[in-house]
Amino acid sequence: MAEAEVVVGVEAVTLNESDSVDNDVVDPWNVASVSDSGIDYDKLIRKFGSSKIDDELIERMEKVTGKPVHHFIRRGIFFSHRDLHSILKLKEEGKPFYLYTGRGPSSGSLHLGHLIPFILTKWLQETFDVPLVIQLTDDEKSLWKDLKVEEAIKLAKDNAKDIVAMGFDVNKTFIFSNLDFMGKCPALYQNIIRIQKCVTFNQVKGIFGFGDSDPIGKIAFPAVQAAPAFSSTFPFIFGNKKVQVLIPCGIDQDPYFRMTRDVAPRLGFKKCALIHSSFFPSLQGAKSKMSASDTNSAIYLTDTPKQIKNKINKFAFSGGRTTVEEHRKLGGVPDIDVAYQLLKFFLEDDVELERIRVNYLKGELLTGEIKKIAIDVITPVVEEHQRRYKEITDETLESFFTIRQLKFAS
Amino acid sequence: MAEAEVVVGVEAVTLNESDSVDNDVVDPWNVASVSDSGIDYDKLIRKFGSSKIDDELIERMEKVTGKPVHHFIRRGIFFSHRDLHSILKLKEEGKPFYLYTGRGPSSGSLHLGHLIPFILTKWLQETFDVPLVIQLTDDEKSLWKDLKVEEAIKLAKDNAKDIVAMGFDVNKTFIFSNLDFMGKCPALYQNIIRIQKCVTFNQVKGIFGFGDSDPIGKIAFPAVQAAPAFSSTFPFIFGNKKVQVLIPCGIDQDPYFRMTRDVAPRLGFKKCALIHSSFFPSLQGAKSKMSASDTNSAIYLTDTPKQIKNKINKFAFSGGRTTVEEHRKLGGVPDIDVAYQLLKFFLEDDVELERIRVNYLKGELLTGEIKKIAIDVITPVVEEHQRRYKEITDETLESFFTIRQLKFAS
Repeated sequence: MAEAEVVVGVEAVTLNESDSVDNDVVDPWNVASVSDSGIDYDKLIRKFGSSKIDDELIERMEKVTGKPVHHFIRRGIFFSHRDLHSILKLKEEGKPFYLYTGRGPSSGSLHLGHLIPFILTKWLQETFDVPLVIQLTDDEKSLWKDLKVEEAIKLAKDNAKDIVAMGFDVNKTFIFSNLDFMGKCPALYQNIIRIQKCVTFNQVKGIFGFGDSDPIGKIAFPAVQAAPAFSSTFPFIFGNKKVQVLIPCGIDQDPYFRMTRDVAPRLGFKKCALIHSSFFPSLQGAKSKMSASDTNSAIYLTDTPKQIKNKINKFAFSGGRTTVEEHRKLGGVPDIDVAYQLLKFFLEDDVELERIRVNYLKGELLTGEIKKIAIDVITPVVEEHQRRYKEITDETLESFFTIRQLKFAS
Repeated sequence: MAEAEVVVGVEAVTLNESDSVDNDVVDPWNVASVSDSGIDYDKLIRKFGSSKIDDELIERMEKVTGKPVHHFIRRGIFFSHRDLHSILKLKEEGKPFYLYTGRGPSSGSLHLGHLIPFILTKWLQETFDVPLVIQLTDDEKSLWKDLKVEEAIKLAKDNAKDIVAMGFDVNKTFIFSNLDFMGKCPALYQNIIRIQKCVTFNQVKGIFGFGDSDPIGKIAFPAVQAAPAFSSTFPFIFGNKKVQVLIPCGIDQDPYFRMTRDVAPRLGFKKCALIHSSFFPSLQGAKSKMSASDTNSAIYLTDTPKQIKNKINKFAFSGGRTTVEEHRKLGGVPDIDVAYQLLKFFLEDDVELERIRVNYLKGELLTGEIKKIAIDVITPVVEEHQRRYKEITDETLESFFTIRQLKFAS
């Protein structure tokens, strides 16, 4: 999957140039908002033609699963979907589905924002007891970045270790890198050819904004990200069974799966269902998302407690006022305050979060204080990740990459 | 590899529309001449920028190999090359090279014309004692034709049996189909990505005439045909050694390898050398090449002696005159006579061929008589092929597809 870079609106590649000036830009390579409070997600839903995750859907999810939804869903962090109802129906009927998500390997360590889709994916896997496939698009990274094939393969393995450290069940999870797995499973390339036969250059030009001077590898790549959305790509997991898929991903990845959904009926498959996350803000604010290529914008999973403290104190965009007096009088603005946003992602206690929000809004909680709370919540998350990361042996890592049958309920 | 279809000039897809009206059309999907005597090959050499195989090169080949060149080379059937000198130099220095050729699987049986590149490839393999890789582009056929992936894979296996029946040495020959081998050797996809990163849509548009409404699979495919021209695609044969390649192929395939040669230095490889064949004429004459999709234009390797006799007598375009009297007086025209062309390909005896040519030219040999000679030469070629074909067991066929080390001199 692509990693959208922080780009200001007017520079961004987009389909409709007038959009890029007046509106937010969201595509697999660019995420940028024109507003301090970030992307206008309602507008994005209308533009992409997806559906909002509303109270009725949340209620249905809770009824079907018999448990509260994850706070990412409850708080609108995962805010949009396609065909989620069909997945809930499968669950009700005791029929199988599977999860597919991915990541474009980046150099160095992952940052907090990278965890978001995987946190929800893990919750979905545990809640629905379904198999999960994770695609590492090292081929994409090699095509888009100044990165040799060998380096991209290495990054994929490095990144996989962070993913494994999140605690996925090896019995239900298959991780693969395209540059490796392509040469180990004929079904993958065969499905890519089936997909590439259905999609024209005009279509990828329209969907992704590719141009005549783009390398043919980029033009062909969307089919590679689409293929795992068809269960026949994994005969060792699903045999001949056609199993539907649910894809948790950032909303910026939706263009890939709009294309995938268009192709699905022609391949004899049901359209993939999707659940979309909003973006994890950069420390500089919700105008852009956290990016691994800007060290000051991101909290890495390798950061020390001291680094986390310094970064949040120094860089986290504040919704507070210029002086304490003014803050006490006018109150803070949690919607644009990065420390508050971090809490929204990582502080699970709804009551406590609401207390903080209200106190900040009233001016009772100062910028330094809300930042301290954020530091106290984030630091143990990162430390816990580092502890688990250290425990991952090469054998454990390899076991996730091994082509094998997975266990699942249905 | 593509199978060029018979298309009249004005309908053909080509880069330069003015060319298609005034001149011959030669690209991987179309071969058509404006002249009864067929393609103007000297003009094609100038247009493609390749080099003519002249007497000096033939002399050098004979000196280096210590034996006469194959009659296909002597008679100008293989008439053009790129960097053949560099291959001869490797031979002189006792350094290794390998051969790469291919075929786009077609339904039903192969025809006589399909044998031509393989006949010369076999001679080159025996003469130079080098390994050979044969790519069956079932992926390409699935993309270009109304052909399911499964059907294309089956056709590739069917066609491979005809290739194996030509007597290639299993110890030195590896045959693979893309839709199968892609999933068995990560090095292939990795090289494809390296190539696809270097080639833009503009370039494949310029080389192959692709347009915006072409499927992305077609646009990406040239990299798949290019990859076997790099020895690193076959680590099980060459290890880490960078070995140069010689590609015998129809001149219509040259666009693929012009692209491959452009890319080679950027991948750290020497440019592939090429030896180009002219086209095997259809029974209707040299204006078009023999095509598997027109049953009356082709002599199939499954045809009975009776079918061969009937087809040549009924359909083979004659360079003879309307009446016997006129023929005796004016003589025949061997250059446009398909029976004579067949003899040029399959009658190995130079003296006998020249005797026939002169007698036909003088009018001493009648149309019916030269057709009878052609029938007598072709029939045993086809019968011998059928005999060998019957002997190919599934195990023999599979052994050519097995990923393994190959034996070679250097």
